Amino acid sequence: MHDHHEEHLRSSAWITDIVIGMSDGLTVPFALAAGLSGVVDSNAIILTAGLAEIAAGSIAMGLGGYLAGRTEIDHYNAELSREYQEVEVVPEKEKQEVRDVFAEMGLSPETQNVIADEMAKDKDKWVDFMMKFELGLDKPDPKRARNSAFNIGMSYIVGGLIPLSPYFFTQHPIDGLKLSCVVTVICLFIFGFFKAKVTGQNPWTGAIRVTLIGSVAAGAAFFIASLFD
Amino acid sequence: MHDHHEEHLRSSAWITDIVIGMSDGLTVPFALAAGLSGVVDSNAIILTAGLAEIAAGSIAMGLGGYLAGRTEIDHYNAELSREYQEVEVVPEKEKQEVRDVFAEMGLSPETQNVIADEMAKDKDKWVDFMMKFELGLDKPDPKRARNSAFNIGMSYIVGGLIPLSPYFFTQHPIDGLKLSCVVTVICLFIFGFFKAKVTGQNPWTGAIRVTLIGSVAAGAAFFIASLFD
Repeated sequence: MHDHHEEHLRSSAWITDIVIGMSDGLTVPFALAAGLSGVVDSNAIILTAGLAEIAAGSIAMGLGGYLAGRTEIDHYNAELSREYQEVEVVPEKEKQEVRDVFAEMGLSPETQNVIADEMAKDKDKWVDFMMKFELGLDKPDPKRARNSAFNIGMSYIVGGLIPLSPYFFTQHPIDGLKLSCVVTVICLFIFGFFKAKVTGQNPWTGAIRVTLIGSVAAGAAFFIASLFD
Repeated sequence: MHDHHEEHLRSSAWITDIVIGMSDGLTVPFALAAGLSGVVDSNAIILTAGLAEIAAGSIAMGLGGYLAGRTEIDHYNAELSREYQEVEVVPEKEKQEVRDVFAEMGLSPETQNVIADEMAKDKDKWVDFMMKFELGLDKPDPKRARNSAFNIGMSYIVGGLIPLSPYFFTQHPIDGLKLSCVVTVICLFIFGFFKAKVTGQNPWTGAIRVTLIGSVAAGAAFFIASLFD
């Protein structure tokens, strides 16, 4: 709500993007490669599938994030015009909505009235207030959608190349898998540790959780693929 | 913030979950299968890779969502104890923070004081207020994390089986790809239409956007795989 947060840790937007992209990037290509390792006898197929997945996943997350950001901007603007119209056409109803917000905060009816009357004096502030506190909408930053898309997509690619790289340097899928497991589990652990640190969680719990998700996903993919084989 | 939203459309939690799971479920396995179709000569490999991806993706999204929900609950509880401690130890600082929140809403210093004094009379309300309006944290629902994980994971599986199913019923990857493109583009369009409808967007724009993301992802995966081949 405002910039002063005592020591409550908040991560910046680009760190959040990297965390989102890398979480899935490390996990899904790792699991896909692991699943294929049990049933195909060529690293080339695993690398092809892995790179196709990284392309698909990074575009789905990056482009998907970009278009979601654009949609959010359209949505914000549509609600903004509607609120301006409402304070014009049904001001008493909108004043009651201001009072409702403060009633929910537990303030007395007298204080609610003081606030609603003061708010009604400035239409821009009033609408700003309704957007933020009635509808829970913050003004979206147009540049944010594009940057976020790029950061998430790139993090997915970087994350995905880590579990895949051992298949470049080995001859047989099972050797690739062994090396990939070692490298990826270490990376998941380190990533989970720092992810928890920047979001203010216990780093060791975070490290174990992220490693667990990746390992369960890889185990399930291996099992499903072997059933099909 | 409160339940009364005029006609501003809000989708319910489980619809949001289905949208999240199905967006990626329709897109990524579709693109992976498309990428492989150009370079392998057996539907069995595509199905194996596709099912391994669906297993990995649904677990990464579902279990990832569940653990993120658990982390959110831990985080909320940690901040809650800290706020209770702060209103006890540094009440004047916390009262100033209440005033800061209302100053940012554009209310006069007199009104800010009235509110801060009233808030300080009830510590539970005061802490509730600080959690929600200073830190922007809503009390997380413990059941929500589990339900959400299940809904997202299942939607990913259902979404992913749609583009994959044609490879069950065809003999050659290129035939599978043709049928998969037809089926998936239709499903992406319908899904995008309803996704936009429930989130209050223009359904036709939504349909085109979702179809576009899926098609670009599949095209990129096909291109990347063919380079590697």
